[in-house]
Amino acid sequence: MSKTSITVAYGDGIGPEIMDATLKILDAAGAQLDIETIEIGEKVYLRGGTTGLEESAWDSLRRTKVFLKAPITTPQGGGYKSLNVTIRKALGLYANVRPAVAYYPFVETKHPNMDVVIIRENEEDLYAGIEHRQTEQVYQCLKLITQPGSEKVIRYAFEYARSYGRKKVTCFVKDNIMKLTDGIFHRMFDEIGKEYPDIEKETWIVDIGAAKLANSPEEFDVIVMPNLYGDIMSDIAAQISGSVGLGGSANIGDQCAMFEAVHGSAPPLAGKNLANPSGLLLAAVMMLQHIGQPEVAARVHNAWLKTIEDGIHTFDIYREGISKQQVGTKEFAEAVIDRLGQLPEKLPPVAYKEAPKLHAVLKQRQKQKKELFGVDIFLDWDKGTAEELGKALEQFKAGNLKLRVITNRGVKVYPGGLPETFCTDHWRCRFHAEPGETIEHRQIVELYNQLVAAGYDCIKTENLYLFDGEPGFAAVHG
Amino acid sequence: MSKTSITVAYGDGIGPEIMDATLKILDAAGAQLDIETIEIGEKVYLRGGTTGLEESAWDSLRRTKVFLKAPITTPQGGGYKSLNVTIRKALGLYANVRPAVAYYPFVETKHPNMDVVIIRENEEDLYAGIEHRQTEQVYQCLKLITQPGSEKVIRYAFEYARSYGRKKVTCFVKDNIMKLTDGIFHRMFDEIGKEYPDIEKETWIVDIGAAKLANSPEEFDVIVMPNLYGDIMSDIAAQISGSVGLGGSANIGDQCAMFEAVHGSAPPLAGKNLANPSGLLLAAVMMLQHIGQPEVAARVHNAWLKTIEDGIHTFDIYREGISKQQVGTKEFAEAVIDRLGQLPEKLPPVAYKEAPKLHAVLKQRQKQKKELFGVDIFLDWDKGTAEELGKALEQFKAGNLKLRVITNRGVKVYPGGLPETFCTDHWRCRFHAEPGETIEHRQIVELYNQLVAAGYDCIKTENLYLFDGEPGFAAVHG
Ligand SMILES: NC(=O)c1ccc[n+]([C@@H]2O[C@H](COP(=O)([O-])OP(=O)(O)OC[C@H]3O[C@@H](n4cnc5c(N)ncnc54)[C@H](OP(=O)(O)O)[C@@H]3O)[C@@H](O)[C@H]2O)c1
Ligand SMILES: NC(=O)c1ccc[n+]([C@@H]2O[C@H](COP(=O)([O-])OP(=O)(O)OC[C@H]3O[C@@H](n4cnc5c(N)ncnc54)[C@H](OP(=O)(O)O)[C@@H]3O)[C@@H](O)[C@H]2O)c1
Repeated sequence: MSKTSITVAYGDGIGPEIMDATLKILDAAGAQLDIETIEIGEKVYLRGGTTGLEESAWDSLRRTKVFLKAPITTPQGGGYKSLNVTIRKALGLYANVRPAVAYYPFVETKHPNMDVVIIRENEEDLYAGIEHRQTEQVYQCLKLITQPGSEKVIRYAFEYARSYGRKKVTCFVKDNIMKLTDGIFHRMFDEIGKEYPDIEKETWIVDIGAAKLANSPEEFDVIVMPNLYGDIMSDIAAQISGSVGLGGSANIGDQCAMFEAVHGSAPPLAGKNLANPSGLLLAAVMMLQHIGQPEVAARVHNAWLKTIEDGIHTFDIYREGISKQQVGTKEFAEAVIDRLGQLPEKLPPVAYKEAPKLHAVLKQRQKQKKELFGVDIFLDWDKGTAEELGKALEQFKAGNLKLRVITNRGVKVYPGGLPETFCTDHWRCRFHAEPGETIEHRQIVELYNQLVAAGYDCIKTENLYLFDGEPGFAAVHG
Repeated sequence: MSKTSITVAYGDGIGPEIMDATLKILDAAGAQLDIETIEIGEKVYLRGGTTGLEESAWDSLRRTKVFLKAPITTPQGGGYKSLNVTIRKALGLYANVRPAVAYYPFVETKHPNMDVVIIRENEEDLYAGIEHRQTEQVYQCLKLITQPGSEKVIRYAFEYARSYGRKKVTCFVKDNIMKLTDGIFHRMFDEIGKEYPDIEKETWIVDIGAAKLANSPEEFDVIVMPNLYGDIMSDIAAQISGSVGLGGSANIGDQCAMFEAVHGSAPPLAGKNLANPSGLLLAAVMMLQHIGQPEVAARVHNAWLKTIEDGIHTFDIYREGISKQQVGTKEFAEAVIDRLGQLPEKLPPVAYKEAPKLHAVLKQRQKQKKELFGVDIFLDWDKGTAEELGKALEQFKAGNLKLRVITNRGVKVYPGGLPETFCTDHWRCRFHAEPGETIEHRQIVELYNQLVAAGYDCIKTENLYLFDGEPGFAAVHG
């Protein structure tokens, strides 16, 4: 077997210890790795790098395309950017994969039978960092969900399920409320799901789904969801499996991938030979599958399972009466190495035959016909009632582009609002053509110009388009 | 005691049975109520009312300002609006209050000591329904968090804690990512919290907080959070308390309030005298406190607790070996009535002395100085690379308003992007003045006009403002 180049970072806090333990086990198991070490994290931040990562490190990552990363410490306060967000976005790591497994009765948990994999969309949603404050009172953040981004992560989830012999893929969304954004994610799930008739499919509204996950996680298998829900659900799953210290994760992109533990650098434990290296080790097991060394992955994983069921435990999972021996980081690694080649007897052993090819190829799609129908113009205004604003705006028009409705925090306030409705200084004024007609961009310029000339503080616009005749905007309710 | 007018709706499915049971108990307990009955729900929807509620019903609600509501059935498919969202927004019910309590050992749960109250902001966040699709690939939803909206619900949470002798208020946000929107919620929490030195305060990032809530809910007391997080967390809390059928909730506004069970109309159980009326009854207990009949509230609540610990259980909480007798809806109500005047012996009894006055008064604030600094213009564009777009846009300017940076899904792609970054057809082009300068609205009109004249599909704008010199917009990362 030829060696595969990977990039390794030892990180901060407990990072160096657990990376050391992990690499020793990989080496003893016969992993064929050519390791390039880079420096990331606290020291790099404090040297003045706002991203915690230097140019030479980028070069290594783009050469090897595989990153095994120990946790880092993010310095407190001051404009440091999240290293993980930076890497994820820059390398296009669109799928975050997090198994959460109970190792009952060897590790305490209230959910003995859970074995769930959460696949979280990793680049979109409210994490795009597009935020604006445009009035005294109101703060905005833009949630973006894209058709290709949804298709990629959903296809990845189904391919993953198939490769790993999983039976069911569940989708979590809130499309009863967010019909467009969560709606496209749900529609992609239904569409792509049809190509996988061998796999069971189900969709849950995220609130009820979350309740079910927290109470009976054993009813789920693979779950795919948008970024924010995935962020919350994967933390819940890791925690209730009883094993935050045992969780590994993979960040998968078309070209690159990054593998790390789910926990952080745990500064209080650093340098004490106490930390559990299992999270990083299980991330490395995912990496070995990714780079085409599945037999080594299985050898490491089975030896680790045997160690756990033999009751050789680090302090965090040690329990009187269940565990046999409390060990440190190094000794735990040695115990795993001693068991290389063995299979667990009570926990189910793993078998990884061939590295699954999980590249998500986007479907060719016909572009829809797009027509301009109107514009939502948002005003910062605090001079009176909704009725007064509505009356005043009725006089502004550009051809068939006319005021139709005003909302405040999404509630219709003109024409015909209710006096109980609390109004902020942030008004959405919807102007559009008659049904069946369209408008041109220059009409929006003209209308905008009139409003600005009349002294209105136009803070924001959102165009209203039709796609194949269907509105690309949510209707105003109530 | 004079009678209080309330509006009552019997709803659909199990609604009539559980409302009947509830009202019988309230009557026997001596509640002084003048009841106006309105019709809501499925029948009203199917008669053609898109909101499930008729004009005469609004009149009653606005007269009594107190609504005890049984669950309704929302007809499947078609453009029906959520009745709850309509009522909540129209009546300004800004705080959703949901206690989740374990009744161990009388009701099975994995979390015997939990007793948490989730207070959810009820009008803002991603629920404003402001969604747009403006390109082939990208769907947007606007998250709105307001300073007064945050202040109101947070102040309500602290007043609630104080009134009910609660020790701690926790805030869940994700302001490490959403620094503006979740940031203002967090800042309001810190600011208002200072006025309540007697109450312990803590803040959790929502993902880790959710994990902690799911695993050890007994560590929380009152938790306040924005709408979406609250939606998810309150379902988790209800579920893991072991008692979805036992949950009541209050929706509180400055002028009106609505009380209901947390569950729905459970059509399969309807008309069978099987449903547990406890959720609606506990909602009615909250209502009695709200309308100034705290002694009656305590009498009902204590009799109910005694019934539960006597093991008189409806089918949903009946467990062999724990329960004593399985009863129907009516018999359960009779058992509660039989125990009016008694206190529970093992579960802690309640005492409600006087109705807490929980009106949230907004603080007077100094308006900040607002200056226009630039504009983000979003384009639908798929004709080439980020570099090409950047070069082409460099030529458009209006005085000191010039192109500074372009992002795609929040990732900086010009100047100096990375080739690995996956780009959609949705480009944010940031134009602004030099640091220290400002611009005028007409410069935006001029720039917009140039871009439209050159054939660019400008889909959306977001102005960039400074407030007291501080940017009211998130910086571009990476
Ligand atoms: N991907 C990353 O690089 C990453 C991720 C998360 C956080 N962080 C950073 O890590 C630093 C610390 O964050 P944090 O304290 O919130 O979270 P943390 O590092 O995950 O540690 C929280 C606690 O979890 C336990 N723990 C974590 N890993 C463990 C292990 N391998 N073995 C045994 N116990 C373990 C320890 O609990 P006890 O002390 O109670 O035993 C530790 O104090 C921060 O600077 C944060 O920004 C980095
Ligand atoms: N506020 C509201 O008006 C409201 C809220 C939620 C849903 N809904 C509407 O209610 C309808 C049904 O929704 P759904 O089935 O998703 O949720 P659901 O009505 O809450 O019922 C789900 C299941 O929970 C159990 N359950 C609920 N209430 C119970 C009670 N009082 N006693 C005993 N068991 C109870 C039943 O389980 P088993 O059958 O397994 O015993 C029931 O089938 C839909 O039309 C929905 O739109 C209305």
